[in-house]
Amino acid sequence: MSIADLKKAVCDANLDLVFHGLVKFTFGNASAIDREAGRVVIKPSGVPYEKMKPRDMVVVDLAGQVVEGDLKPSVDLPTHLALYEAFPSIGGIAHAHSHYATAWAQACRAIPCLGTTHADYFRGEVPVTTPLTHEDVNGDYEHAIGASIARAFTGRDPLECSAVLVANHAPFAWGATVADAVEHARVLEEAAALALHTLAISPGAPPVPGHLLDKHFLRKHGNAAYYGQRR
Amino acid sequence: MSIADLKKAVCDANLDLVFHGLVKFTFGNASAIDREAGRVVIKPSGVPYEKMKPRDMVVVDLAGQVVEGDLKPSVDLPTHLALYEAFPSIGGIAHAHSHYATAWAQACRAIPCLGTTHADYFRGEVPVTTPLTHEDVNGDYEHAIGASIARAFTGRDPLECSAVLVANHAPFAWGATVADAVEHARVLEEAAALALHTLAISPGAPPVPGHLLDKHFLRKHGNAAYYGQRR
Amino acid sequence: MSIADLKKAVCDANLDLVFHGLVKFTFGNASAIDREAGRVVIKPSGVPYEKMKPRDMVVVDLAGQVVEGDLKPSVDLPTHLALYEAFPSIGGIAHAHSHYATAWAQACRAIPCLGTTHADYFRGEVPVTTPLTHEDVNGDYEHAIGASIARAFTGRDPLECSAVLVANHAPFAWGATVADAVEHARVLEEAAALALHTLAISPGAPPVPGHLLDKHFLRKHGNAAYYGQRR
Amino acid sequence: MSIADLKKAVCDANLDLVFHGLVKFTFGNASAIDREAGRVVIKPSGVPYEKMKPRDMVVVDLAGQVVEGDLKPSVDLPTHLALYEAFPSIGGIAHAHSHYATAWAQACRAIPCLGTTHADYFRGEVPVTTPLTHEDVNGDYEHAIGASIARAFTGRDPLECSAVLVANHAPFAWGATVADAVEHARVLEEAAALALHTLAISPGAPPVPGHLLDKHFLRKHGNAAYYGQRR
Repeated sequence: MSIADLKKAVCDANLDLVFHGLVKFTFGNASAIDREAGRVVIKPSGVPYEKMKPRDMVVVDLAGQVVEGDLKPSVDLPTHLALYEAFPSIGGIAHAHSHYATAWAQACRAIPCLGTTHADYFRGEVPVTTPLTHEDVNGDYEHAIGASIARAFTGRDPLECSAVLVANHAPFAWGATVADAVEHARVLEEAAALALHTLAISPGAPPVPGHLLDKHFLRKHGNAAYYGQRR
Repeated sequence: MSIADLKKAVCDANLDLVFHGLVKFTFGNASAIDREAGRVVIKPSGVPYEKMKPRDMVVVDLAGQVVEGDLKPSVDLPTHLALYEAFPSIGGIAHAHSHYATAWAQACRAIPCLGTTHADYFRGEVPVTTPLTHEDVNGDYEHAIGASIARAFTGRDPLECSAVLVANHAPFAWGATVADAVEHARVLEEAAALALHTLAISPGAPPVPGHLLDKHFLRKHGNAAYYGQRR
Repeated sequence: MSIADLKKAVCDANLDLVFHGLVKFTFGNASAIDREAGRVVIKPSGVPYEKMKPRDMVVVDLAGQVVEGDLKPSVDLPTHLALYEAFPSIGGIAHAHSHYATAWAQACRAIPCLGTTHADYFRGEVPVTTPLTHEDVNGDYEHAIGASIARAFTGRDPLECSAVLVANHAPFAWGATVADAVEHARVLEEAAALALHTLAISPGAPPVPGHLLDKHFLRKHGNAAYYGQRR
Repeated sequence: MSIADLKKAVCDANLDLVFHGLVKFTFGNASAIDREAGRVVIKPSGVPYEKMKPRDMVVVDLAGQVVEGDLKPSVDLPTHLALYEAFPSIGGIAHAHSHYATAWAQACRAIPCLGTTHADYFRGEVPVTTPLTHEDVNGDYEHAIGASIARAFTGRDPLECSAVLVANHAPFAWGATVADAVEHARVLEEAAALALHTLAISPGAPPVPGHLLDKHFLRKHGNAAYYGQRR
């Protein structure tokens, strides 16, 4: 995909976050990476969505220096860069203060896998990061968020659980492409709302058993998948 | 109804599930049976709703073999077939991960009949299935779901309570026609949300008394019904 | 207002209940009375809202006999007639299974007055009826509902609290006109949702003090009202 | 800004409150002040939003006397005047019975800062006023509300926390302009809903640490802000 196509895909993804109700105000951003070219395309900071065009997207190098675009990149750029470095298999990232996932993040609690809707997309609980220290917050804050996410995935494949909750803040989701990242952000929001309401009905509801989790995740992902129009 | 008409009715039913907000993404499917012809018409697997046409519907025989259509049927087809076999009086089935009914399913709790909205459609609690074993999940999984639903209705008329919650998963609803199945899925979702909020207000709220349950169900169903424009 | 005008007002009121999200499916109905002519105009039973026209409204006498119209009146007609008889000051009634008010009705709990939004319209708690007996339910059921509402207002002015919750069922609202009844049904729904969420935040939240209740109610109603464009 | 421009800005702000779902019925109002001219422009009382035009806005002097306009000003005018007097740095005020913020106000509980969405806009908890006495309510009630808000901000900069909950009633928000006031009312509503759901997930969730609160507030406000397209 050319950088021009990537700018269109990133602009579309940002607008999709609004269209699907995940972003209110300017609380959100999406990006994509071209690993061969060493470029990341990201939303500009604090620009109204109504007027956003592909040409407004900001192109930066892997050190975060702007190489194309007149606007400043999202303040969350260092978080995105840290994730692209930590997770070599991902191609796009979406961040949104979507309502229910944000409530779980504010509660500093991982979202347990309580049903097959969750298991179809996330192989187990969606983790929450450890809160940042005073030094992290007052140092290179946005980079430290990315590092805290990477730590939460130690020993875990980021494409088997393509989302995280940043403690006290909100979720990030990712995927092979930025469109996948948006889809994962959407499913995460529904799984978060379902989990809240499930626990309201049955406060001690346990996670689904491992065999059901694996069945649903692998029915949709990997070599043995048989969901959809695969042949 | 001809197979062509049934394909249109099934396509309409699938789109209605989306229109009424019961289906997000591709989490849902509807089907209908022509018992004389020995044919079931069902949604294809993982196809976007925006582009769905009657001609995309898949026609299978009662063993699940495709007899018409270029697409693979929904992965939930064996569940539908098991229900058509177990419940000879039904003509259509709707499955959706509708939000509140799914929360009850994830909580593995039957929805109690707490009011007349529920009683107008479902004669008593909407049951939840027993969770499947490791063997069921790793064997013929989707058929085992259907069998678990049938077991939950032992001794109960499936047209007096035309919906069920599959434990850890989501609801299925059915009816004399596929349009009825969708209507029952919609009422179930409202009854599920009402039950959650009723118990939030009064945690120990008991089910409605039997005489009120019967009055409302029979006011709308059966020979003595007097609701609507019956003469 | 002529009967023709009343039929239009009643049709509009029924459609407004749908437009404002208070009625799902056919769970609701509105009526108005012409006390001089001895006529009540009410929605027909079980007719889809999309196709409803003023000419479909049913005109009955005070004994409930149809005097104009081809359709059967709402099954709730006897409830409406009982209310018009018990409350001589009211001119219109609206019934809807609106979500949050219905949850309170199902919980068999009166809605306490927890804030000024409620107090602006209802002078004190919105009461809940006593559940009907087996005999009431199997006798003249819909009339018995009306009688139970009248009993819940013993010693209370129905225009100072123009709504009620029928236990295990749903709310009824009323007013000087059928348009007022719809407005009261809408405010009731908001007050019901606010009360649920207020108690979720503070489980023991007490009702507002009497001086605040009176101030807000009387700021909008009665001779000393100064809200709006009164002169 | 001329008085004519201010009337347009105030009319737009009132309509924005409705557009964004913060105002139901006529429960809300917005105003702006021209401190040089000694004029306040405010919504008229109880006028339907559908028909509201800039020319309907009421212009009053700082004593509340109407100097321009045919309609009566909002009954909440004395509250607005008291706030403009107490908070010399503000230029606009928005009042709405927005759902979740009103639930917190009815619960008489301050909204704790549980996450960065809140911290981006409000530097710490959004306070709740002390309930008014019997004398206050029966005296100059609407002015007493304003005075109670001013007391809740003793020692606090009203531009660092540009909203308040009036006990048993609903929120007020403000800002440098009336458009800012509306934006703050919108963020307040989201923060209120997030806080309710966060506490539903984790009943004892503590406020965010002070360094995270300051980081987010100051990333967006003040001389060291680096969010958005500032250079």
